This record gives sequence, structure tokens and C-alpha cells, in this order.
Amino acid sequence: MINKNYLNLKDSYLFSIISKKVGKYTAENPDNNVIRLGIGDVTLPLVPAVTDAMHRAVSEMGAADTFRGYGEEQGYAFLRQAVAGYYGKKGVTLREDEVFISDGAKSDLGNILDILSPDGAVLIPDPVYPVYVDTNIMAGRRIIYMDGNADNAFLPLPDKNIKADIIYLCSPNNPTGAVYSEAQLKLWVDYALENLAVILFDAAYEIFVRDKHLPSSIYQIDGAKECAIEFCSLSKTAGFTGTRCGYTVVPHALIRDETPLNRLWLRRQTTKFNGVPYIIQRGAEAVFSDAGLKQVKRNIDYYLENARVISDALAGLDIWMTGGSNSPYIWLKCPGGLSSWEFFDLLLENANVVGTPGAGFGSNGEGFFRLSAFGGREDTTEAMRRIGEVLIAIFADYD
Amino acid sequence: MINKNYLNLKDSYLFSIISKKVGKYTAENPDNNVIRLGIGDVTLPLVPAVTDAMHRAVSEMGAADTFRGYGEEQGYAFLRQAVAGYYGKKGVTLREDEVFISDGAKSDLGNILDILSPDGAVLIPDPVYPVYVDTNIMAGRRIIYMDGNADNAFLPLPDKNIKADIIYLCSPNNPTGAVYSEAQLKLWVDYALENLAVILFDAAYEIFVRDKHLPSSIYQIDGAKECAIEFCSLSKTAGFTGTRCGYTVVPHALIRDETPLNRLWLRRQTTKFNGVPYIIQRGAEAVFSDAGLKQVKRNIDYYLENARVISDALAGLDIWMTGGSNSPYIWLKCPGGLSSWEFFDLLLENANVVGTPGAGFGSNGEGFFRLSAFGGREDTTEAMRRIGEVLIAIFADYD
Repeated sequence: MINKNYLNLKDSYLFSIISKKVGKYTAENPDNNVIRLGIGDVTLPLVPAVTDAMHRAVSEMGAADTFRGYGEEQGYAFLRQAVAGYYGKKGVTLREDEVFISDGAKSDLGNILDILSPDGAVLIPDPVYPVYVDTNIMAGRRIIYMDGNADNAFLPLPDKNIKADIIYLCSPNNPTGAVYSEAQLKLWVDYALENLAVILFDAAYEIFVRDKHLPSSIYQIDGAKECAIEFCSLSKTAGFTGTRCGYTVVPHALIRDETPLNRLWLRRQTTKFNGVPYIIQRGAEAVFSDAGLKQVKRNIDYYLENARVISDALAGLDIWMTGGSNSPYIWLKCPGGLSSWEFFDLLLENANVVGTPGAGFGSNGEGFFRLSAFGGREDTTEAMRRIGEVLIAIFADYD
Repeated sequence: MINKNYLNLKDSYLFSIISKKVGKYTAENPDNNVIRLGIGDVTLPLVPAVTDAMHRAVSEMGAADTFRGYGEEQGYAFLRQAVAGYYGKKGVTLREDEVFISDGAKSDLGNILDILSPDGAVLIPDPVYPVYVDTNIMAGRRIIYMDGNADNAFLPLPDKNIKADIIYLCSPNNPTGAVYSEAQLKLWVDYALENLAVILFDAAYEIFVRDKHLPSSIYQIDGAKECAIEFCSLSKTAGFTGTRCGYTVVPHALIRDETPLNRLWLRRQTTKFNGVPYIIQRGAEAVFSDAGLKQVKRNIDYYLENARVISDALAGLDIWMTGGSNSPYIWLKCPGGLSSWEFFDLLLENANVVGTPGAGFGSNGEGFFRLSAFGGREDTTEAMRRIGEVLIAIFADYD
């Protein structure tokens, strides 16, 4: 009766344990100011270009002559064109009907599996955003993990001895902040083309890429349109975590079993989805306007400056890390050989700073720790000052 | 590589053929005023209570101190409470965590299949909303059809010789407008309890039920919480077809294979969904306010009066039909033994009225035709005047 694969899911207690530990600590130490650098959520409000557009759209929906009912499930043409235009600036040419508007990358990253056979094998990095693993367990698919570790700077590369049908890549990466180079992504594209595999490329953090030599879309790599689907979201780009809009690109050139995946995905979306609210799509369109992009850039500048504050402080402490530039995340090796949770407790109790234990993102995350640049500037600066003080006091190495 | 079940889907040309036929006719007869009574989309704008709430929410999202990031995937408590309160008025007591906010019934009706085994058999009425069939073909599930026809007034009842694990019911029905009585639904609930089946109850048109003796929720039937999941949407309730918000109820008492389906659905939604936009949830909350319900009722009154105009006209012509009260749809038997498409052509060419051929909703729809009450009053009245004129002229019976 039920889908038994669900019984194989592990409950994730990561954020509930964090919340319990922090709750207990603050209850016992009500006067201490605990700073949270653990969150993966944005904090800056929507930019004026977006809220102006949404106010206009709300008014349209309230008037008989401008009211809109059902739209196309794959999104209004005005927004698909805006997304295609954004890709154009990256040197990637997309047709409007290769772009599908969605309520966010998380939904599409899970739902895309609908159109792929559950019999295949899927290759997933460890550590990783837990949704990749859980959605495949739900489908009963065989999972092969690829190791991210300090040796490969958490950027695993293809192994010719492993055959997989589906490959998840996330760059800039959550949780490690690591970004694949063009040469590295080319290895993945070549592997996928040779094995007729499909790369599911999660580009949710693409806007943080400022280094012109680093790819922010897999389609900047030759051959990618024949082997990759790209997922992106305005959650981090424009603070849409609570506003919900993203997009998925399925190129016409991507064909498997003689079937264009674009056609399958269109059929999936028209059958099981009814599109994103008109009001939200107008807000999303405004993100890609000149004014919107300028306003959004200021917010990204702010987060990237936080990331610089964090990574400079860690560099000064001689702590091994990835991310921190071209990414809002900083992934660090816990000093003194501490485990992820030991380091969590140490920071909470001694520096009153909350981060995220790397062990929560997979077994290879053990001994690592994630800090996020989505906090306020003052808090971030103060948190790093305290962390420095504590680590220098505890570990002689840092003297 | 791909999900081969997708290759078993039939392409639906229903609305594209309609659109081509109408396009051709209007091109050849540019001066004729063609009235469309085929649409399943609403036409009245959002009510002021809703747009006011959304304007406030947009402003909140643009200010640092009221900005909201990620919400709970299953919806904000304020909206789940509002939905539970709405059920309370129907005499149905729900706990807040039995309500899941979604982007619409279509998404959830498709996605719910994720948590159920694809090995089971599914019982689907014919004629039917095509999404039930297509989502099950995508999952490779065995489909058993149950006949709706003039004999059972398009309200098929359980057959003890048929064993199914999943049962789709839609009441008030799309496309037939027929509404199950309490006694009839009780037969279905008893059948499901006896067979440990799960009823997927599509209540998208519940707000059109005005007859106090007819159920507008399956939970008004004893035992339903142990065997039914109910899907609803604000699309028709409050004109949200382009605004996208609905809700799904999974009672805690619904347990299969010793597993509460509520827990499975929560896991599905937290893994593959990120919730409905905050702005939209505030709009939805306003629907359930006193002012919102009052404003929405006026719109439903308007549509129901259109339905009365249509069904009175058909009754005057002695045409067999279902629906027309407690529903925005009218399902009629094509006069003179015409096929669905023959009647479509006849109405288009002679009355300049567009409806929907019943054959598009399943083989049992052949010879039937759907008219919708979602048009304007003047158009509806004029369309029925023309239809009467044409039918009386063509078929001597009506003299």
C-alpha cells in the first residue's frame, strides 16, 4: 500500500539537535548574546524593484480588466525570456522553451526524478545537500557516493570505473562553498557524454561567483547541453527564500532513450504542477531588470563581504577551509582534531556562536564545520573576533 | 534511463483541437460574436480582502524588520489554523498539523502518489479530470475504470467484486457537476475501510455546495478520517487559479502498513517542497476571514446564478443533464444522438457558442457535453438564448 522506500529514510535530527542545544544554552545563560552563523537563510529584505512589481501585480489581480487566471504551467513567457536574457549575459544562448519557471530549486531537484527510471544508479557527492540523497531513497534508486575531502578540496572528479546514470553536482557548493573550475566541470561533462549519464547541476548559488574564470552555469562548458539539466532559484539570488521562485533549464539537445527530456519534463509539469503565482512571477521578472540586478548586487556584495570577514579571520588562525569567496558558505576543518559536534559545543559555550556541524551533511563532513555569510555585518565581525579569542586561548598553535 | 511509463501517456489534444476549430471559425467569420462557455477558469478578480492582505504582505517582505525567509514547508500556522477553522464550520474537527498548505490541488493530487506503492491498483471514474489518469500512468500503476453514465447519474458506486488500493472521487464533480449524497459517500467510505483502500477526495468545488443535505467534505462521513485524504484549492473558491494556493488534509487516523500517512506526506513535502509564498499565504488567510468569506460568497453567487441560467434553459429544452446546482458545471446529453464533437461543431457554427466535448474526459463522456458557469452573465444568457433557438430550429422534438 505505502511506498516502502520511505521507511529507508533516516530522520535528520541536525537542525533539531542544534535548536535544542542552543535552546538549553540560552535558557541557562540568558544574558549571553548568542550569534547565529549557522543559518542557510537570507536576512536582507526584498529589493524595491521586486516589491514595486509585486504591488502592481496584486493590484492587477484585483481588477476585472487585468485579472489573470491560469497561466502556462511552465511560466509566463515574460519571465522565461528574462531568464534566457540573464543566461545570454553569461554567454549561454537558451531558447525560451528550454526554461521552466518553478517554485524553487528544491521542488524541481526532487521532482525531476519522476522522468528518470528508478532502476539507474545515481552518483552523489558526500558531503551534500541532504535533499539529493533523500529524494533518491524515496524512489528506491541505487546511490553511489563520491568522496569530497580535504585532498580534493571537496571537489570530487569523475572516476572512470564507476558507472552512473544520474550525477548531482552543486557549484558553488552547499555546504562546502567550493566552486568547480571550467576544466573540472569539463571532466564531468565528458564523463556524462561518454556514459550517457545526466548531470543534475544545482546552480542555486551562481550569483555569488565573481571570479570571471569560474563557471556560474554548466552550459558555459562545451557539450553540457547534451548532458545536463540546470536548477537555479531566486532564493539566494534575490532573497526569495520565503517568496518562492526558481527556474530549471532542460535543453532541447538533451536526449536519452531517443526521447527529448525537455518534452518529458514539460509533460510532468503540465500534469503535476500549475505554475507559480502571477504576482511572484512579476516580482521575479523585476529581479532581472537593470534596476533589479543593480539592487540585488548590493545585497550579494554585503553577504560576500561577510564571507570575506569570516574567511580572513580563519586564514589568520591558519584554519583549513574551502569557500568564503564566490560563495556565501565557509567550510572549515575543526581545529585540534575535534569532531563536528565537539567543535559546535566549544563554539557555543565559549564564543556563543552557532554554526552547523559538517557531520550533518554526510559522513565525509565529520571533523568539518559550516559558517554562513547570511548574518548581519556587526554580528559576523563580532562572532569572528570571539572565535579567534577562544581558539587562541585553547590551542597553543594559534599563539 | 528515462521513466518509460511516460511513453504510455496519450497526448491530449482536447483543448488544442477546440482552439484550432474556434480559431478557424472566427477567422472565416470575423463579424460573429463567439461566446466561450467551455472554460474551467474563473473570470472574476480577487476580492479586496485578499488583495489588501497581499499588499500588506508585499510591504512586509520589503522591510528588514518584517521580512520573512523560509517558512515551514507545510504552511504557516496562521493559514493552517484558518483552514481548520473553515472545516470547523462544516462540523469537521481537524488538528492544525493535519492540514498541509500547497500551491494547489493539482500538484498534491499528483504528488500524493509518491507516498503510495506503485504496485497497487487504482480505481478511477470515467469520465474524469484527466490528471488522475495521467499521474497514475506515469507511475506505472494498474488503472481500473468505473463507469459514470446516465443510469447512475455519473455518480458510480462501489462494486464489491473490484479490489482497489486507491480510489479517486471528485464531488462536486469535474466535468459532470454531479454531487454525491451522504449515503452514497458512506458506501465509498465503507468500501475503503473494508478493503484498506485510500480515497483521494478532490473537493476543489466544495464551495459551490449550497444544499445543506449534500456533503462538501468527505470528513462529514463517519469513518472517513480512517480512509481518506482530501484535496482542496482556493482556485475556484476565491479565484486563485493564477494565484496558486490550496490545502490537503491527511488525518492522523489514516494508517496503512502500520504507518501514519500524515508522517509520510510531511516527509515528502519537507523533502521535495519549500512551501507557498508568504505573500500568497496571507492572501489565502484573508479568504477565510469574515470579510473574505462574505466577498467570496458574492462571487460564487454570481457563478451559481449563471449555472441556473444554463440549467433552466436546458431543462426548458428537455435536455438530460447533471450539475447546474451546487456546481459550476453543467453536463448534458447531446440532443439527437449527436457525438460530443458533432454537437461542438453544431453549437460553434450555428450558435457561435463554444463548450467542451465530453469525449475529452474519457470514453464514457462520448455523446455528452460540458458547459461552464464561469463566464459573464450577459454572455451566458445570450449563449443559452442562441442554443435554444438553434436546437428548436434543428430538432423538431423541441417544437
